[in-house]
Amino acid sequence: MSRETGTNAIVREKAEQAVGVLEEQDVDLWLTLVRETSQVKDPILDFLVGFDLTWTSALLVDRSGRRVAIVGRFDGPNVQRLGVYDEVILYDESLKAPLLNTLAALDPRSIALNYSESDPAADGLTYGLFRLLSGWLSATPYASRLISAGAVINTLRGRKTSTEIARIRAAVDATQTAIAELHQKLRPGMADTEIADILHGFAQARGYGTAWDWEYCPAVTVGPESDFGHGMPVGLRTTRGQLVHVDFGILRDGFAADLQRTWYLSEKPGSALPPDVARAWEAVTGALEAGRAALEPGAAGWAVDAAARSSLVGSGYPEFMHAFGHQVGRTAHDGGTVLGPKWERYGDSILGIVEVGNVYAIELGVAVPGRGYVSREENVLVTDEGAQYLSDPQEGVWVIE
Amino acid sequence: MSRETGTNAIVREKAEQAVGVLEEQDVDLWLTLVRETSQVKDPILDFLVGFDLTWTSALLVDRSGRRVAIVGRFDGPNVQRLGVYDEVILYDESLKAPLLNTLAALDPRSIALNYSESDPAADGLTYGLFRLLSGWLSATPYASRLISAGAVINTLRGRKTSTEIARIRAAVDATQTAIAELHQKLRPGMADTEIADILHGFAQARGYGTAWDWEYCPAVTVGPESDFGHGMPVGLRTTRGQLVHVDFGILRDGFAADLQRTWYLSEKPGSALPPDVARAWEAVTGALEAGRAALEPGAAGWAVDAAARSSLVGSGYPEFMHAFGHQVGRTAHDGGTVLGPKWERYGDSILGIVEVGNVYAIELGVAVPGRGYVSREENVLVTDEGAQYLSDPQEGVWVIE
Repeated sequence: MSRETGTNAIVREKAEQAVGVLEEQDVDLWLTLVRETSQVKDPILDFLVGFDLTWTSALLVDRSGRRVAIVGRFDGPNVQRLGVYDEVILYDESLKAPLLNTLAALDPRSIALNYSESDPAADGLTYGLFRLLSGWLSATPYASRLISAGAVINTLRGRKTSTEIARIRAAVDATQTAIAELHQKLRPGMADTEIADILHGFAQARGYGTAWDWEYCPAVTVGPESDFGHGMPVGLRTTRGQLVHVDFGILRDGFAADLQRTWYLSEKPGSALPPDVARAWEAVTGALEAGRAALEPGAAGWAVDAAARSSLVGSGYPEFMHAFGHQVGRTAHDGGTVLGPKWERYGDSILGIVEVGNVYAIELGVAVPGRGYVSREENVLVTDEGAQYLSDPQEGVWVIE
Repeated sequence: MSRETGTNAIVREKAEQAVGVLEEQDVDLWLTLVRETSQVKDPILDFLVGFDLTWTSALLVDRSGRRVAIVGRFDGPNVQRLGVYDEVILYDESLKAPLLNTLAALDPRSIALNYSESDPAADGLTYGLFRLLSGWLSATPYASRLISAGAVINTLRGRKTSTEIARIRAAVDATQTAIAELHQKLRPGMADTEIADILHGFAQARGYGTAWDWEYCPAVTVGPESDFGHGMPVGLRTTRGQLVHVDFGILRDGFAADLQRTWYLSEKPGSALPPDVARAWEAVTGALEAGRAALEPGAAGWAVDAAARSSLVGSGYPEFMHAFGHQVGRTAHDGGTVLGPKWERYGDSILGIVEVGNVYAIELGVAVPGRGYVSREENVLVTDEGAQYLSDPQEGVWVIE
C-alpha cells in the first residue's frame, strides 16, 4: 500500500526460501504464469513480486537458485527495481518465444505449476492460462514434465519468516484492540449492525482492512436467532440473558488475524453466568485446549482436528461442522495443511503435516438453546515446544452487566 | 462495502441479463465454480453474488431462466437473502452429490465454464477446480459437454446496464475532481511521489479505492527520464520546460475510471507551448479522435485500433506499443473485446465486435525528446450514435506557469 521497503523485504525472504523448498522437494523449476492480476490474482504473487502485473507474465524460480521474470515492457521497471530476479526479460508482442527460450536454457526435468484440487492458496493458475501454456509447450519435451506446485506453495506459505510472524502479530494486536473498544461500548439492545459498525469504524479510522469480505467481517451472532457462520449483520438486536459472539480479523500491512470472542448480557447486575452457558464454555475451552495440545510439529492435520472434535463430543455436545483449524497469513484462510475432518470437501489438505513456523487459527463453538452461540477462536504459532498463543486467549465468557 | 441495496440491484440486473445472453448464444447452462474467493476470486462473482464465498460453490444459470446456487451451509443465508437464486441448496460435506443431482435434473446439452485463453475477465476458473470438476463428471455424459463461457461473459460484462453506467460515470467524476485538485497544487520542482500522494490523499479522504494497484495508480511520468507504463513513482522531480503526465482512476462503489492527463511546466510565465509539444498534442488528439470515430456498434476491435494507429503514424510518430482501447467497468481492464493490434499477446480478444452499452477507455501517447510524455486517455460510452464522452475531454496540454 505504500512505497515502504517492507514488502520488498518479504518478497526477497520468500524468494530465497523458495529455492530451498525446491531442492527439498526435488523440483527443478517452479513456473508461475499470471496476467491482469487486478482481475484474477494468483495469491502466490504477493510472495513473488508484491504488486499487480498486467500483461501475461512468467516468474521462474530454478532449483539452482536462478530467478527469471519475463514480463511485458511496461511492467519491467517495477520488477527490475525489486532486485529479486537475476534476469528480467521484457517483451512487447508475445511471452511465448522468451518463455520457450528460457525453458530450453534451463532444461528442467520437472516444471511445477500453481494448481491444486484441494488447496485454494496453491491454485492460482487459471484454466485458460493452462490451456495457453499447454499449446505453447505442445511441440516441446516440457509438455510432459508439468507437475503441481501444491506442495511447494504449501511449504513456502506455511513456514512463516520472522518478518511475517511480526506482521501477523501486529494484525492480532490491532484486532484485539478493536474488540476491546467494542467491549467498552457493548450494551443490551444494540443491533448486530451497530456492533459491526464499531469494528468497521475502528478499521477505517486507522486505514486497516478486514481479514475477509468487509460485508461479513465481523460475522456477528446475536442471541439464538442469528445465522451462525459467514452471516452478514441484518439488524437483530441483543437482549439480556442472551449471548453475543463476533468472528473478526484486521488486515494490516498485508497480513491477517482471525479471532472469535463471546459475551453474555447478564439478566441483572451481579448475577452469575447461567449454568448452561458456563457448561458450554467449559466444553469449548476443553476441546480447544485438547486440539492445541495435539498441534505440534509432525502431527497430521486430521489428527489435530480429531483431538478437539472428540473432546467436544465427549463433553456431550454435537460436533462442529467445520475444520478445527486453518493457517493464517496473507489471508484469514492461508491454505496449506488444514486441521480438519476427513470430509470430501477438505480433499487431501487434511493429510498434510504440521511444521514449525506455521501459524494457525484454531476455533470451535456450540449453540446454547435460547441464548445463542458460545465460540472461541485463537491464533497460535507452532514452535518446537508446541502451539504458542499469538492472541491473548479469552479466559472466560465476558459478561456485560 | 456496505449493507446498501445497490450491489444487490446490479446482481439482479446482471442475473436477468445472463438468461437472455444464454438464449442468444444457444448455451444451455452456465456453471460458475468457485471457492475461498478471498484467495482467488473469479471476477464474474461480482455479477453473480457480490460477496465472497468460502466453501466450494456452484452458481448455475439455466437458459430456461432457472438459477440455482449450491453453497456451503455457512454461506447459505447471505445467498438466500440475495433473492436472485430460485433455489439455494446447502451442503455440509461435499458439493459433488448436489451438483451432479442438479445437472441430472437440468440435463443440459452444453455447460459453459469460465475459461478463456485470451480474456482474463472470462478466465476465473482455476485449473485445480477444473480438474476437480472433471473428476466428478467423468462417469456422466456431461464431461463431453463442457464449453468456454468466454463469449457469454464478454457479452454480459460488456453490455452495461443503466445502473452500471451511472456508477462508472460517478467514478469518472471523482477521478476528474481528484485531477482538478492536483492541477491546483502542481508546481515545478514537485516530485512524482508528491503528485501520487495528492491523488492518494484525495481517494483516502473519501474512502475511495484506486482503479488498479494502489502502488502505481497513479502512474506518473515526469520529464523524459521517467519510465512510461505501469511505473511506480520513485522520487523524480518535475522541472520547467518539461511535461508531467498521470494515468489515474478512482474505484468507487465497485466501479472504475481510467484517465490520462498531460501538463506542461512553462519555461517562464506567458510563454507559448513549445512547437514540439504542440505538434505532439495535435498528433495524439487527431489519432484519438480518429479511433473514437471508428468506435461504433458493429466495428471489430482491431479495426478501431488500426484507425487510431495509422493516424498517429501518418502524423510522423512511432506507433504506441499497447492497445488503443479496453473496456472499463468493475476494473480498469474489464475484459471483452479489446481495441488492439493483431499481436499474439492479445489473442482473439481483438476479433470481438463493439456493441451498444460498451464502455471503453481509449488512450495513446507519444514521447517528446527532452521533455517527457504527451498522452491522453478518455472514457466513452458506445451508443447508436457512436462513442460519447463520459469524461470531459482534455482540450489541450494544460500549462502550469
